[in-house]
Amino acid sequence: MLIVMQPRTSEDNIQKVIAFIKEKGFDAHVSNGENQTVIGAVGKKLIDKRDIELLAGVKEVIRISSPYKLVSRVFKPENTIIDVKGIKIGGGHIGMIAGPCTVETYEQMDATAAKLSKAGVKVLRGGAFKPRTSPYAFQGLGEEGLKIMREVADKYDMLVTSEVMEVNQIPMFLKYVDILQVGARNMQNFNLLKSLGEIRKPVLLKRGLSATIEEWLMSAEYIMAGGNREVILCERGIRTFEHIKRNTLDISAIPVVQKISHLPVVVDPSHATGLRDKVAPMSMASIAAGADGLIIEVHNSPETAICDGAQSLYPEQFADLFNELKALANLLKRTF
Amino acid sequence: MLIVMQPRTSEDNIQKVIAFIKEKGFDAHVSNGENQTVIGAVGKKLIDKRDIELLAGVKEVIRISSPYKLVSRVFKPENTIIDVKGIKIGGGHIGMIAGPCTVETYEQMDATAAKLSKAGVKVLRGGAFKPRTSPYAFQGLGEEGLKIMREVADKYDMLVTSEVMEVNQIPMFLKYVDILQVGARNMQNFNLLKSLGEIRKPVLLKRGLSATIEEWLMSAEYIMAGGNREVILCERGIRTFEHIKRNTLDISAIPVVQKISHLPVVVDPSHATGLRDKVAPMSMASIAAGADGLIIEVHNSPETAICDGAQSLYPEQFADLFNELKALANLLKRTF
Amino acid sequence: MLIVMQPRTSEDNIQKVIAFIKEKGFDAHVSNGENQTVIGAVGKKLIDKRDIELLAGVKEVIRISSPYKLVSRVFKPENTIIDVKGIKIGGGHIGMIAGPCTVETYEQMDATAAKLSKAGVKVLRGGAFKPRTSPYAFQGLGEEGLKIMREVADKYDMLVTSEVMEVNQIPMFLKYVDILQVGARNMQNFNLLKSLGEIRKPVLLKRGLSATIEEWLMSAEYIMAGGNREVILCERGIRTFEHIKRNTLDISAIPVVQKISHLPVVVDPSHATGLRDKVAPMSMASIAAGADGLIIEVHNSPETAICDGAQSLYPEQFADLFNELKALANLLKRTF
Amino acid sequence: MLIVMQPRTSEDNIQKVIAFIKEKGFDAHVSNGENQTVIGAVGKKLIDKRDIELLAGVKEVIRISSPYKLVSRVFKPENTIIDVKGIKIGGGHIGMIAGPCTVETYEQMDATAAKLSKAGVKVLRGGAFKPRTSPYAFQGLGEEGLKIMREVADKYDMLVTSEVMEVNQIPMFLKYVDILQVGARNMQNFNLLKSLGEIRKPVLLKRGLSATIEEWLMSAEYIMAGGNREVILCERGIRTFEHIKRNTLDISAIPVVQKISHLPVVVDPSHATGLRDKVAPMSMASIAAGADGLIIEVHNSPETAICDGAQSLYPEQFADLFNELKALANLLKRTF
Repeated sequence: MLIVMQPRTSEDNIQKVIAFIKEKGFDAHVSNGENQTVIGAVGKKLIDKRDIELLAGVKEVIRISSPYKLVSRVFKPENTIIDVKGIKIGGGHIGMIAGPCTVETYEQMDATAAKLSKAGVKVLRGGAFKPRTSPYAFQGLGEEGLKIMREVADKYDMLVTSEVMEVNQIPMFLKYVDILQVGARNMQNFNLLKSLGEIRKPVLLKRGLSATIEEWLMSAEYIMAGGNREVILCERGIRTFEHIKRNTLDISAIPVVQKISHLPVVVDPSHATGLRDKVAPMSMASIAAGADGLIIEVHNSPETAICDGAQSLYPEQFADLFNELKALANLLKRTF
Repeated sequence: MLIVMQPRTSEDNIQKVIAFIKEKGFDAHVSNGENQTVIGAVGKKLIDKRDIELLAGVKEVIRISSPYKLVSRVFKPENTIIDVKGIKIGGGHIGMIAGPCTVETYEQMDATAAKLSKAGVKVLRGGAFKPRTSPYAFQGLGEEGLKIMREVADKYDMLVTSEVMEVNQIPMFLKYVDILQVGARNMQNFNLLKSLGEIRKPVLLKRGLSATIEEWLMSAEYIMAGGNREVILCERGIRTFEHIKRNTLDISAIPVVQKISHLPVVVDPSHATGLRDKVAPMSMASIAAGADGLIIEVHNSPETAICDGAQSLYPEQFADLFNELKALANLLKRTF
Repeated sequence: MLIVMQPRTSEDNIQKVIAFIKEKGFDAHVSNGENQTVIGAVGKKLIDKRDIELLAGVKEVIRISSPYKLVSRVFKPENTIIDVKGIKIGGGHIGMIAGPCTVETYEQMDATAAKLSKAGVKVLRGGAFKPRTSPYAFQGLGEEGLKIMREVADKYDMLVTSEVMEVNQIPMFLKYVDILQVGARNMQNFNLLKSLGEIRKPVLLKRGLSATIEEWLMSAEYIMAGGNREVILCERGIRTFEHIKRNTLDISAIPVVQKISHLPVVVDPSHATGLRDKVAPMSMASIAAGADGLIIEVHNSPETAICDGAQSLYPEQFADLFNELKALANLLKRTF
Repeated sequence: MLIVMQPRTSEDNIQKVIAFIKEKGFDAHVSNGENQTVIGAVGKKLIDKRDIELLAGVKEVIRISSPYKLVSRVFKPENTIIDVKGIKIGGGHIGMIAGPCTVETYEQMDATAAKLSKAGVKVLRGGAFKPRTSPYAFQGLGEEGLKIMREVADKYDMLVTSEVMEVNQIPMFLKYVDILQVGARNMQNFNLLKSLGEIRKPVLLKRGLSATIEEWLMSAEYIMAGGNREVILCERGIRTFEHIKRNTLDISAIPVVQKISHLPVVVDPSHATGLRDKVAPMSMASIAAGADGLIIEVHNSPETAICDGAQSLYPEQFADLFNELKALANLLKRTF
């Protein structure tokens, strides 16, 4: 931590700051510039930098150690590769996750999965518990939805991923799913994150709508600090002033996160854009920018979907897009 | 719902849209302008407007009914007044809630509450379970913290409010606190909101960092839809591009929300600004703008506080501010 | 400037950074922490910190000197008071500027100014050149509008302020107006700012819709660097994710700016909120937060106004509000 | 325009609204729903919708006609192709514009242009007049810079593009440059836009930092309304809450704009990201998303560049990237 003093502040103020940080358990390294003093505070304690900023003569306090440890490339330089029953995501292996917004019936899941499997998809997505802005909207099939997904996935030899909303639901999810999703609205549900740190299945952690990259990584840190090292980050659009689009897909976050962290970063172009015709260009752009995977909404009959039909691809559209994506990955010397 | 067709679209497209919405259970009212047709879809079903926007010839679909019901002034024109053991918030009664960020010890709470009570505060705040961005930060005393708060509050004849983070914690909170807080990060933790709808104690619902006013009201709707009509809204700063301040306190939201909803709106100037010297001007501004109350961090010894000391007022500062606020309320013909 | 090296980076990297900054004309002060080195670069040259951030082993470069000089309280601790023909703004003197959005006719200005003057207003506002998002909207009366304002203001012994959009217009404005306004969209029109630095009349500088406080102050610095020391800052709402309101009036910026800078800060509640019924609460909140003045839209007949009638107060509404504001100022020991 | 009345408002209120809009020159089409009336206002006059929203019983007023005409695909369905001396941008032709941030010397421009030309670049960029946040920063070589660019471009048979900051500078720019740039900070400098509408050379219009897509298109409309139909839109990053990156490159805007407008959309990945190592992934992503071109900063010696060296590519890096981009374009059946 660096404490930048006001230009030409008094020696007395400087000494009081030094005394304060020593009392808090830090060593002080003083560096006198021409008309400004900077004090380095070295130590392992946690301290709120504002406590120092309020002392007389202090201009600014700057934290220089990163708040994240386990998620950082400094801690683990090589890419993390998530491997579930031989399906790999990260480190050159691009994952493709697809399926409907929500599980409706066995027939719907079966029809959708049949086509996805044929197109080469290995991980099936679908919501059983749905976070909805309105209390009056459809809230999902619950455990029945998870059962259907598991049964269908087993039929086509696929993995299952679905969103868990609540600590209480974790044991149920462990019975049915291979990758547990945390939704954007729960990215800072710290009790949920802590509990997911104690399991030993991968967690796909969506970025909150207005979460900074640092906050997103700190939420991953919560999971990893509990001992679960298998975290997949998922960019799904951020909230900006622009409302013509649903959200602003932050493709520029991909290389930024990949530089700081060793964790794989996948992209959800469906929720980010909210409209089917934007899914293909955003999928292509994400892979071109270096994303480690995609999670795309596909429904066997989008026009009758209970939710998010407008952003769901038709199976044929998806198959075409997947072919284009494979050609792009090939050009970039990576593979789905 | 109004469906605005593209200028000069074909009659065929118009008929297909009409057929589509009828199939979904809506009546269609067609209105032909000079070169543009608008179709009114009347009905009670829920439908995703994007499903219609994807049909050929459709320019835009506009939802005209409000998504909220119980929180709306259309539903209940008169102001809701929350009355807990004779302490009133709303409808001209301004509530003052004060206390430290987090419960540390009995002595700390007792010393703080003694001064607050003397200054005229009737509701004591304090965190026992703390949502922290870092897994390595102090996470609160837990149930022990709630016990301390209750004991101290009873000594000074005060009410207690504290943040609940998890469905599982609700029964414990009901034993100790009078008003349950939902934090900004949990504003869309829908399972928690639903469970809080089933209790019969007031809930103070903080606005999420990037929650629109509509989303905030929809979260209140979740609680009210469960039968709990006692919701206090709390503005606590939104996230914007400006980082020189911690958050941007959205004082302009106060009259906007009060026009749409009958629920009381209180303001948390401490978390919004993050610095002690900004608390007084923001408190004054909030009351001048019409807020129904304030929730302010006060600590008997801010410089030794475990968390948020920098934004906590000294008891003497608080007492002075409270006097100024009372004079302001008096000028505005309202009362604390 | 502080250069924070990566933990445990090589001595070679450290030496290369030192050599680099010395070559650029800086002195280097090295401070070795337990596992991290920080290099202070001391000097007066301008350097792009990213040039250093790209060197091997560098974690972060932190600028510690403020980019603004003349606008800063470090440079001039006492409040700047703008005094135009005896009308003062700043340092306890609260300015009230009022008038219609745009000058329409002599009769309109005369009718409006008569009522404003009677209510005690000393500075008349009105647009002659209007920045409009659409090329098809009314663009103002031009010089004729300025003439009308001047004539009417002289009749009632008032000052005139109006928005200048272009370097070429400055000589014309100097003939008619007492305070030149720079609109939000021109806040970073640097050629205009430079030219306004060369005149000797006060400039009211509106904050850009998404301008940080630092950028806003740097634009004031442009004017002051040219020798014009009379700058009035004007907060008028920022753009955020929230669209239910026109903009988000950033009342919390008032104490922040007043701490950094000695310049007066006035608030425009009319453009910020865009609706008449929000002007009163936002005006009261601004003064309660410490603003040095207000600029409010008032029209003698809002329902027939050419532009912004919806946010214009009726003269009677304004007179009532002004009385309330004076009572508030009195309570705060300040005066209009 | 659609006027949505409050549910169950009185017939009197409805009649007053109808009378109001008729007086303003509109026809009224009334549509009665079950418990809500919607009034369609048909006419060509401009009206501020807030004027109607303030009438009793009105819930919301919705504008249904687009504010832009000439920029819209409804007006001109086929893609606009900008053709300058045989170099095409738009409609499948991807433009590549490259060069340094600022013109420093003839030698610098010559050395850079030699390498760019060899790599296949046909349009040279470089700043002669620089908009700088600080009045103390380098402001460009002025006309001398334009002369150098022209001379160097002619030597290598390239086109020249450079930023114009001021109406007065236009005649000078017409002498030297082929495409005039409008910078992000001037996107709503309406006087400049109007003047650029009167020339007959292409204008590259950068999106403002916080400009909505609608505002950006309206600024293009200003230029086109003057008779200049050659506008190239340029996305260069928007301002969001996230500060770890310089700006957030809004790649998702590309397909959105291309659907609404026929104008070509190019991307500036250098200013958006601010760091050299992010330029390649963002360039690839932009082309994959469908961009009609790129404008990339390249400097023959980035470490000695006067400005923005950190985001400038080395000529060799650029040549490699351009090869990758050509392979990508080929895969997408488009050409540079």
